[in-house]
Amino acid sequence: MINHQKIKTAGIIGANGYTGSELVRLLTYHPHVTIHFLYSRSHSGKKISDIYPDLESVCEMVLTDTFQDVDILFLCLPHKESVHWLTQNFVKEETLIIDLGNDFRLNGNFSNRKFIYGLPEINKKQLIGAKSIANPGCFATAIQLALLPLAQKGLLNEVYTTGITGSTGAGQSLQPTTHFTWRNDNISAYKTLTHQHVDEILQQLLTFNNHEISLNFVPWRGDFARGIFTSSTIKTDLELPELQVIFQDFFKDQPFVTVSEKPVDLKQVINTNRCVIQIEKNENFAVIHSTIDNLLKGASGQAVQNMNIAMGWEENIGLNLKPIAF
Amino acid sequence: MINHQKIKTAGIIGANGYTGSELVRLLTYHPHVTIHFLYSRSHSGKKISDIYPDLESVCEMVLTDTFQDVDILFLCLPHKESVHWLTQNFVKEETLIIDLGNDFRLNGNFSNRKFIYGLPEINKKQLIGAKSIANPGCFATAIQLALLPLAQKGLLNEVYTTGITGSTGAGQSLQPTTHFTWRNDNISAYKTLTHQHVDEILQQLLTFNNHEISLNFVPWRGDFARGIFTSSTIKTDLELPELQVIFQDFFKDQPFVTVSEKPVDLKQVINTNRCVIQIEKNENFAVIHSTIDNLLKGASGQAVQNMNIAMGWEENIGLNLKPIAF
Amino acid sequence: MINHQKIKTAGIIGANGYTGSELVRLLTYHPHVTIHFLYSRSHSGKKISDIYPDLESVCEMVLTDTFQDVDILFLCLPHKESVHWLTQNFVKEETLIIDLGNDFRLNGNFSNRKFIYGLPEINKKQLIGAKSIANPGCFATAIQLALLPLAQKGLLNEVYTTGITGSTGAGQSLQPTTHFTWRNDNISAYKTLTHQHVDEILQQLLTFNNHEISLNFVPWRGDFARGIFTSSTIKTDLELPELQVIFQDFFKDQPFVTVSEKPVDLKQVINTNRCVIQIEKNENFAVIHSTIDNLLKGASGQAVQNMNIAMGWEENIGLNLKPIAF
Amino acid sequence: MINHQKIKTAGIIGANGYTGSELVRLLTYHPHVTIHFLYSRSHSGKKISDIYPDLESVCEMVLTDTFQDVDILFLCLPHKESVHWLTQNFVKEETLIIDLGNDFRLNGNFSNRKFIYGLPEINKKQLIGAKSIANPGCFATAIQLALLPLAQKGLLNEVYTTGITGSTGAGQSLQPTTHFTWRNDNISAYKTLTHQHVDEILQQLLTFNNHEISLNFVPWRGDFARGIFTSSTIKTDLELPELQVIFQDFFKDQPFVTVSEKPVDLKQVINTNRCVIQIEKNENFAVIHSTIDNLLKGASGQAVQNMNIAMGWEENIGLNLKPIAF
Repeated sequence: MINHQKIKTAGIIGANGYTGSELVRLLTYHPHVTIHFLYSRSHSGKKISDIYPDLESVCEMVLTDTFQDVDILFLCLPHKESVHWLTQNFVKEETLIIDLGNDFRLNGNFSNRKFIYGLPEINKKQLIGAKSIANPGCFATAIQLALLPLAQKGLLNEVYTTGITGSTGAGQSLQPTTHFTWRNDNISAYKTLTHQHVDEILQQLLTFNNHEISLNFVPWRGDFARGIFTSSTIKTDLELPELQVIFQDFFKDQPFVTVSEKPVDLKQVINTNRCVIQIEKNENFAVIHSTIDNLLKGASGQAVQNMNIAMGWEENIGLNLKPIAF
Repeated sequence: MINHQKIKTAGIIGANGYTGSELVRLLTYHPHVTIHFLYSRSHSGKKISDIYPDLESVCEMVLTDTFQDVDILFLCLPHKESVHWLTQNFVKEETLIIDLGNDFRLNGNFSNRKFIYGLPEINKKQLIGAKSIANPGCFATAIQLALLPLAQKGLLNEVYTTGITGSTGAGQSLQPTTHFTWRNDNISAYKTLTHQHVDEILQQLLTFNNHEISLNFVPWRGDFARGIFTSSTIKTDLELPELQVIFQDFFKDQPFVTVSEKPVDLKQVINTNRCVIQIEKNENFAVIHSTIDNLLKGASGQAVQNMNIAMGWEENIGLNLKPIAF
Repeated sequence: MINHQKIKTAGIIGANGYTGSELVRLLTYHPHVTIHFLYSRSHSGKKISDIYPDLESVCEMVLTDTFQDVDILFLCLPHKESVHWLTQNFVKEETLIIDLGNDFRLNGNFSNRKFIYGLPEINKKQLIGAKSIANPGCFATAIQLALLPLAQKGLLNEVYTTGITGSTGAGQSLQPTTHFTWRNDNISAYKTLTHQHVDEILQQLLTFNNHEISLNFVPWRGDFARGIFTSSTIKTDLELPELQVIFQDFFKDQPFVTVSEKPVDLKQVINTNRCVIQIEKNENFAVIHSTIDNLLKGASGQAVQNMNIAMGWEENIGLNLKPIAF
Repeated sequence: MINHQKIKTAGIIGANGYTGSELVRLLTYHPHVTIHFLYSRSHSGKKISDIYPDLESVCEMVLTDTFQDVDILFLCLPHKESVHWLTQNFVKEETLIIDLGNDFRLNGNFSNRKFIYGLPEINKKQLIGAKSIANPGCFATAIQLALLPLAQKGLLNEVYTTGITGSTGAGQSLQPTTHFTWRNDNISAYKTLTHQHVDEILQQLLTFNNHEISLNFVPWRGDFARGIFTSSTIKTDLELPELQVIFQDFFKDQPFVTVSEKPVDLKQVINTNRCVIQIEKNENFAVIHSTIDNLLKGASGQAVQNMNIAMGWEENIGLNLKPIAF
């Protein structure tokens, strides 16, 4: 079957960043796709393997600042730059565009394109055959997957979420808070109650939940490179088994979400496209833990999952990744 | 002044554990105290420096299983074993006992002794001249200091707290969750909503707050050895400056608590006896961050602070510690 | 081509350990192999995903203590237990046995079987069709790949090597030196000049080098979970370009070894089966850096590579792994 | 005794860097010294606690770009900038200058001043009353202490040393190799065989050793913030007990050097001014391990030790630091 598949061409705009390079790692071994070009204005002329030495002798492509026609185009630009780039470059209508920035998550309209919010666990039908996909944010993915089954049942009122993220979430730029000397063994809070993903999360939750939701989100910086772990506390009278059934039902056809009855830990999902969720209950409060790899299910892995769905391929092609585990 | 001070003798029961050894590190350089014996049933006959190599040529005392009279006795035993030990050993009435376990935190009565809850920021007066002190728990210290100013004003109703702790909080026993391979780069939740410190915290808060408090506490295991960082979210109509005044007033005479208006991070308190608190506000929600070194302000440092107060010495003697900083 | 391949059955003895579980991660997605059983005497009856939560919903097999016939048998037992296990169990002559322990590395004879030393970069021809393979040690792999090109030219006399290993090299047992509290941010030496891999390395080197070699190896424990990094210093009059040509020639047909002219770092090989080597030169001394993932090229990845070669499959089937990179 | 001491004034040039701020941490609690000013051209006007939050409410001094007369002046400038600064500023003859850079280590002459190499374990006599001290480098300190006893006996010929350093060794500037995402869990080599400390080490060793020494030094970057661990291999016919006697004798009056017969590890010296050395022997090779905190015994701690000696104070005043231990 896969032998008769015509190989599709892909291009990555912003290939020099973390999510761009992670796409290179994923697409290099994807059986249906060949990388046609890696675009980077700032690093044009360099090899991608000069920036990311793990790619030496794996992918020796040279970054270019010339855009070419491809079947699939990934935009891995800083927030607000996707709109700018699309305004300055002509992309054919039949090209699938997957934007990993946040430009089209809240408002998906751009020119003749209407970007679908690319969280496959709620939008799989709309994603099939789609030509424009807005890939969700990393915290947004972890927290939505923890809350959507409850939203669907109208169970969300006040939600208190704490989340911790690895340093890759801050990108490759050198900042005081990504300096090893400072970050090693350190924990700190940032954007307390004001993280930009709250709006993205609420927009989706409110399409299910039939009343207002107050989402109080405290993000922390963690002393690790990859991954997101979140715990969300809500008030509910439902018993733990009832909650588990709601979650199991919601995710029963989703290959990358596991509702576990065992304690979850961050490392069990690292270097995979999976999200693992665990629910705990005490008196009339429930806590939902949710964990993902921020660069995979939280970014480039989910982008490949969206591409697979949009192209009519099996959802997990190229995403059966060996976990790091240790 | 310090030259004319009569040196007091101290003994440590359970000197082989983390909090016991941390007391050795502190008391070795305390000008008013000399360590008279280090007691350990399990490691009797070994040098303390055989267990903790940082003490080689610093403290070469041999652990003993013979108890002797001292002026100050520290109990560093697993929870519930302090009662047991005191039942089996005779301690003179005039000996100051500081228990680092949780045996006397909720109920301080034992024989003729009445243990004072040793959080100096609320009980300093009662601690002066005290002979029996129950040293608070580590999470309990960090969270109480974050909430007491609010409790005093009757402002606490529902509190949502997430806290993260270093591996030293789990003690020196070898467990799957303290194995380096598992814990490195990992985050996980434990005792969700059921941590034993919740009762200890509420008992103190309720002596101030004139109505019930719901404290929902989600503890996480962190991938670092020392320290606790907590964020507590509450609903309040008070503005940030009003909250800051309440906190500044509450802690104005407390040498080890800093209410900061700058972003706090865990490492700024590591290897010190300090607690740093920061308040943030958005709409009608406030978040209070509080961070301590779990082995110092959360255990052995606070024990020395309590000893200083009880003995009538300056509160910070022996506690002007160089921060690790990096 | 791969569609017509008859799927082969594999069994793993000692599946509960790190190398055993890593084989599960690799074989789960290997297109020519199906795991027939996971054998563990100590954990029989448990699911492998109860021990390694990253395998939840990926591999839900139950560990068994019953051995069954398979096409390929991996022995992942503590050193010296492979001989014991093979003595007590009957394995058919046509079964390919790959031993990940050190029982057959120095002397490959056992009953009618003659174990081939499974370093494909020197023994590929002998490995094709082999039925018994002794998989090399982790440090032994990294150091041999750094020195073999020089040995082949007779250039080795005195070698001074320092190597650092992640905590997974010490296995899953709980020990003081694998306790997170101790190992985090820590470096220490062990088995100084007496590491058991020295004999294994010398045995191979001496089949090439026509005179004695003195290999002084200082192993260090590192504060990370995965990976090995080694630096070997030798005296030589050859210039850097000459050395690079020797290495490039030696490894020119080896898909998993890269001789780099750029600075190497440990993380560029983590979660891959690759070895990256860099040579540096100053005056008449050369230093050869060599880095691998100890659980992959240093153990289970190399075992799969050996299996592929022995079975006549492409060497890299199932081993095009996404690097962790960050 | 210490009560009658007249307090001396100290100034720190380059107080905004790691070694400068570490001096602030040490001098804040030094009984004989008061910090008179913190000088920084680049950060003038900022509080030191705005740069190093651990100093909040501990030292609230404001950085200045105005130099004032002091009794003791510490230069914490980038290499080569001490000469420049001294050329542009007038420092009184009676001021003790301690330079933490490398400007005066190899050639101590500057104007009328002659800088003494400030390794107290060899130069204590010359340091008493000195007015100009060149503080040794961090690797240079660790490696010299490991080799000096051997040099004194003329036992050094070829030495092979590998050393690993924490990220603080690279200073506070943001660089790709100090980015948390890259450095976490990573090991890499740098300045292989060409590290600038080799000359500094050899200059001292050769004043003892009566013939040439070949020192082959491979420095590694470690994934921790503080500390240096080195292992040096030499050929020798002396037995281990003989070597231990040589080392014990050499360091018998040195309060900060411990020759241990137990395995050493990096963390046992972190946040202390100590150096711990261990010798191991196999056949005719010996390995000497040596470990220090690079910012203390390797920089600011040793500077305070040198100040104490120069001023005629007890060598360990202000340096009885609580180890981090965990």
